[in-house]
Amino acid sequence: MIATLRTIGRIETPYQSVEECPANIEPDGPMCRVVVDEKFARGLEGLSSRQAVMLLYWFDKVDRERFVQKRRGTGEERGVFALRSPHRPNPIGVAVVRIERLDGHSLEVRGLDCLDGTPLLDIKPALNTSEVNKTST
Amino acid sequence: MIATLRTIGRIETPYQSVEECPANIEPDGPMCRVVVDEKFARGLEGLSSRQAVMLLYWFDKVDRERFVQKRRGTGEERGVFALRSPHRPNPIGVAVVRIERLDGHSLEVRGLDCLDGTPLLDIKPALNTSEVNKTST
Repeated sequence: MIATLRTIGRIETPYQSVEECPANIEPDGPMCRVVVDEKFARGLEGLSSRQAVMLLYWFDKVDRERFVQKRRGTGEERGVFALRSPHRPNPIGVAVVRIERLDGHSLEVRGLDCLDGTPLLDIKPALNTSEVNKTST
Repeated sequence: MIATLRTIGRIETPYQSVEECPANIEPDGPMCRVVVDEKFARGLEGLSSRQAVMLLYWFDKVDRERFVQKRRGTGEERGVFALRSPHRPNPIGVAVVRIERLDGHSLEVRGLDCLDGTPLLDIKPALNTSEVNKTST
């Protein structure tokens, strides 16, 4: 153990069970709400509608000891670091999405892949250099 | 507090002080080494050289209570969630980089922005849909 995380808010999605959650972010998926706790609201100053942000959140109730897993669909075995499975040693979810609407201390975004009530860990402005230029395609 | 993090490895960079660290990822920066602990080595199965991965790491010894900060360069005040500052409620760094070389349980990548010895939290394959298509540019 190296450190402890704090909840800075909650994510509201239409998904009440893991089975309903999509396997990945859906750019045209349903609207979700990212609600930042009042205490951290000033941290949002400078963000604007239509901006792309990176959200970090915590996948609760997962198995943190499954270092090799079967790939969804194919059933092929892979290391956890070659998969986007929520079952990982540090189950942190990362999504890059556009802010559709900014309303006080909550953001509306589309197509997140997590359960309703998921703890929010961080919001960062998306960067061109690291998130775009160096990707695999 | 919601959860605890585990170190899955360490990042080796040329930077021994915060002042030396670049403000962001440098696609053509110096070679760095991401060393995964033996215990988690099987988690790397399926990753390959030239693949783009997302690294998550922990910025140690930062101030987790600075919700509004001055922007580097301009001095303009901004909320922490509109900045990529390492000083944040949950100081998790995220970098999308290409694997230059895969050598046992360590990866060589270019241009990370963190101190030598930084704790590694996670490695994920970079995704086209969330990390590329939806960014700000």
